[in-house]
Amino acid sequence: MIRTHNAGSLRAADAGSTVTLAGWVARRRDHGGVIFVDLRDGSGVVQVVFREEDAHALRNEFCVKVTGEVTPRPAGNENPDLPTGEIEVTATELEVLSEAAPLPLPVDDQIEAGDDIRLKYRYLDLRRSGPATAMRLRSRANQLARGVLHERDFLEIETPTLTRSTPEGARDFLVPVRLQPGSWYALPQSPQLFKQLLMVGGMERYYQIARCYRDEDFRADRQPEFTQLDIEMSFVTEDDVIDLGEAIVAALWSDLAGYEIPRPIPRITWHDAMSRYGSDKPDLRYGVELTELTDYLRGTEFRVFAGAIDAGGYVGAVVMPGGAGQSRKELDGWQDWAKARGARGLAYVVLDAETGEARGPVAKNLSAEHLAGLADAVGAKPGDAIFFAASANTREAQELLGAARIEIAKRANLIDESAWAFCWVVDAPMFERTDEGGWTAVHHPFTSPNAEWVDTFEEAPDRALAYAYDIVCNGNEIGGGSIRIHRSDVQQRVFDLLGISPEEAQDKFGFLLEAFKYGAPPHGGIAFGWDRVCMLLAGADSIREVIAFPKTRGGFDPLTGAPTPITGQQRAEAGIDAKPKAPTGVHAGTAGPVAPVADPT
Amino acid sequence: MIRTHNAGSLRAADAGSTVTLAGWVARRRDHGGVIFVDLRDGSGVVQVVFREEDAHALRNEFCVKVTGEVTPRPAGNENPDLPTGEIEVTATELEVLSEAAPLPLPVDDQIEAGDDIRLKYRYLDLRRSGPATAMRLRSRANQLARGVLHERDFLEIETPTLTRSTPEGARDFLVPVRLQPGSWYALPQSPQLFKQLLMVGGMERYYQIARCYRDEDFRADRQPEFTQLDIEMSFVTEDDVIDLGEAIVAALWSDLAGYEIPRPIPRITWHDAMSRYGSDKPDLRYGVELTELTDYLRGTEFRVFAGAIDAGGYVGAVVMPGGAGQSRKELDGWQDWAKARGARGLAYVVLDAETGEARGPVAKNLSAEHLAGLADAVGAKPGDAIFFAASANTREAQELLGAARIEIAKRANLIDESAWAFCWVVDAPMFERTDEGGWTAVHHPFTSPNAEWVDTFEEAPDRALAYAYDIVCNGNEIGGGSIRIHRSDVQQRVFDLLGISPEEAQDKFGFLLEAFKYGAPPHGGIAFGWDRVCMLLAGADSIREVIAFPKTRGGFDPLTGAPTPITGQQRAEAGIDAKPKAPTGVHAGTAGPVAPVADPT
Repeated sequence: MIRTHNAGSLRAADAGSTVTLAGWVARRRDHGGVIFVDLRDGSGVVQVVFREEDAHALRNEFCVKVTGEVTPRPAGNENPDLPTGEIEVTATELEVLSEAAPLPLPVDDQIEAGDDIRLKYRYLDLRRSGPATAMRLRSRANQLARGVLHERDFLEIETPTLTRSTPEGARDFLVPVRLQPGSWYALPQSPQLFKQLLMVGGMERYYQIARCYRDEDFRADRQPEFTQLDIEMSFVTEDDVIDLGEAIVAALWSDLAGYEIPRPIPRITWHDAMSRYGSDKPDLRYGVELTELTDYLRGTEFRVFAGAIDAGGYVGAVVMPGGAGQSRKELDGWQDWAKARGARGLAYVVLDAETGEARGPVAKNLSAEHLAGLADAVGAKPGDAIFFAASANTREAQELLGAARIEIAKRANLIDESAWAFCWVVDAPMFERTDEGGWTAVHHPFTSPNAEWVDTFEEAPDRALAYAYDIVCNGNEIGGGSIRIHRSDVQQRVFDLLGISPEEAQDKFGFLLEAFKYGAPPHGGIAFGWDRVCMLLAGADSIREVIAFPKTRGGFDPLTGAPTPITGQQRAEAGIDAKPKAPTGVHAGTAGPVAPVADPT
Repeated sequence: MIRTHNAGSLRAADAGSTVTLAGWVARRRDHGGVIFVDLRDGSGVVQVVFREEDAHALRNEFCVKVTGEVTPRPAGNENPDLPTGEIEVTATELEVLSEAAPLPLPVDDQIEAGDDIRLKYRYLDLRRSGPATAMRLRSRANQLARGVLHERDFLEIETPTLTRSTPEGARDFLVPVRLQPGSWYALPQSPQLFKQLLMVGGMERYYQIARCYRDEDFRADRQPEFTQLDIEMSFVTEDDVIDLGEAIVAALWSDLAGYEIPRPIPRITWHDAMSRYGSDKPDLRYGVELTELTDYLRGTEFRVFAGAIDAGGYVGAVVMPGGAGQSRKELDGWQDWAKARGARGLAYVVLDAETGEARGPVAKNLSAEHLAGLADAVGAKPGDAIFFAASANTREAQELLGAARIEIAKRANLIDESAWAFCWVVDAPMFERTDEGGWTAVHHPFTSPNAEWVDTFEEAPDRALAYAYDIVCNGNEIGGGSIRIHRSDVQQRVFDLLGISPEEAQDKFGFLLEAFKYGAPPHGGIAFGWDRVCMLLAGADSIREVIAFPKTRGGFDPLTGAPTPITGQQRAEAGIDAKPKAPTGVHAGTAGPVAPVADPT
């Protein structure tokens, strides 16, 4: 090593030692004949004192090597905020390892910079303590998760990333194959099918921190490539996977957030989550639960509510504590908020802070009896506002109230930003109606019905429940998975219900179904959205903060300029314009297109 | 868990316990009213005894759950070859978890199967002990390497795989970008540029087990995607990187091969490796060194040798112990062998086993004096054969002899297959001549000249040496790296010698050169070819044996059928046929095409 010590490691006990340090000039201060330099390396910062002329040439972010003696700082000059604050290094030798041009992005934790400039000069951004800490945290998170998994005899296995295209689900990224012109690989949306094949292969316990790819329209905070901690286990029940998942998040939060997650993490059924929080990923850092009013308001003459009730739908409400104090403009703002979400508006009643009297647009449409019992029915107090949603589609109304609940928490400052609230959302529905009146799988067609429904799911597909589970942290889904079907009779019945013919099943899922013929074990798994997990642990507000070289919207990399046009020669060589040959027949038949069957992260 | 115990874990001490096992029927033997089943799971095998009828339905590879009592085997029936051989499980309950159709690939370690069938039914292949063990070994290798790296404060950092295309070097795999039609990502040949950017970013110690992609013509044992253990460090010298590399291989071989690598691992210069072994990755499990005869044979009238000597080239020899005993046909076979390598032939002399007299085609062309001293000059004994190579191009002749050396070791059974021989090949040349008479970088243009040559490499580019190092195991290059240039004046001089103009440098290496303006630290690294490392540890003869789902030649996956044609809709959506837009200009200029600058694994 060019250095003998790490700058940030020096302490009073090192006084008298001669040390050689190497790092960057974080700050320089001239005091007459003496120059003070804050020297930064990966371990921290130490003050270096130069009495020689040559230090005059130093500028911020010069990379330097310094030899000198560790000396106690003069009394009164100690810096208790700095781990090295009791000492300084009196330099006797200085070597400039490389100079720095004027900085397009100041390496200063105090200075805000735009995302584009940060990403273009990401190598300067990473020298700042926030981004550097995020990289360290992510590395440690990997190590902690692996520790939990290896302790439990999991095998880390790599699965292919040049694989078969999926004609359904999210779009695949495609890769032309020069040696088989006209044929293309796809980059995997997840290792789902391969991890299930590994279970058929007797690997029993698999994990991988896997790169995944989805060619989606870039919404905020999406990346075309992302990472998941991908796990699959054989001979397990849902409880086993949940227990493992808890062990992983417990290890992460204990070490990296200093928070001991109370275990078992509470489980809430999908239906309870929807009815109490209007969300399948409820933020439990605050209350503000939804109240269903369908029965309470039955018989109302208010057309909006009556219509929903008569259609067999749902009317519900959520209370904003102190919401009656909002101005007319603020209350109108809720209408705009609701319309931006695609709703017609957000009906409300405010309760007078003094009298508790209900006022507002909805109040005049409700009967005296309904108004009289309303506050009790929804648990509101004088001074609160009550927001309503009504729809023939229960889920739609619940989700509107769920979104209102989150917005209420923000506007009413109900969120304890230092709190952590975890839950499992379990017992998700197996099926939901398609627009054409058929059924589609909520999770994927290999997800197993639970024990209660496995023999009877056809009788009430809308009520059938799956062994599917998501783990939620502060309203973010950070992982999800399911127990898979391993019995071909059950699989066939699910296909039948979904209207997938044997031919279509063969064509779509051929190689996996083929594998399931040979003694497939019961198995299930989970995948954690690793970028999001690390983002939460880092206290960041975007996954880009925990990715070394993220892309901006549209998949652009401001640092390298990727993507770029290609040359005509590259295009010709890659076989991009070749016509596909007819299938060879040798391998056709067993292998069909891959279905969109990933653990949803 | 569905099971209470792992099958392979049961011992005599468990006798009397009731256990529930789950796994696969490895073998079934009917003995009248009793059926013996070898039940296999991830932990091993145990014998289960059924006295009930229902076990008659069991066939190989049925997945079953069995409850029963652990009982000592009847005296005389113990199986000392099996860890569970003292006991058996007397079944009281049996549940078939899933049945198995007749097997296209027997799950039997004794049965050889072709690669195509093994890969098509890889999930059956992985149930065999060899492939399963290889997967376990690889997982453990990852864990061991990470242990060494984390102990030394390395950070695991993921770098992008959707990145910028490289118009030079090996071909890139390309990915069309739907959101920027006409633009393409490339899959990285290695994380080289990103790891150097991380060093500029002050990360100091980086590693990643990284997926890499090269669109090469598939030679035997190449995969389009492969894995390297990629490492970069700041403020280090060559010795630091070598020391780390040794710590990693020492940990791997100690744990996984039971072999304590003697350290320090011997270092041999590139020039010594070429002159002694005719290879830059010498197999040191055996001797058979080359002897240069250029001076010894100076003045010979034998045209082939004289021509090489007069041209300033090389004449050398390698001895095959006992090679005089080869038949005429065997000796002729060497000529065919040499021609298959592109040489004109392989001149030789055999020494009579009794008299030591030199015979053979070359003998009659050499003078009596040259013949008389030949055996001593090359260290041959009566009964040996001496093979010669001569060329104006020294390296060409040495490489022919180096290949002959390997072939001699095979044919003469000189290789101890149980031996491990490691070395570092250091002091590689910086430059080599291009066909056009200019110079090209042997490693890559960012590789640093060593201290001896850094100020003078222009004076003798053919002799200038780099801080570049490869680690070799049993003749396989398993890793390689270099110290990089971090001073812009040295970088400029290297570019000047290579004939790269400032404009071209900007265009090719723009974003990295830009980064180097801002206080780049001295840095260097190494990359291990992880598939090959695991292959050697597993004692396998192909990297496919240590890859869960490898591809065959041509990049075909017999299991999924990838690659495949794509639909017209996919093609249209992906923007494959879009004309590229002109560059936006905002980000142009700093970022040029990426050079082929990877650590060579």
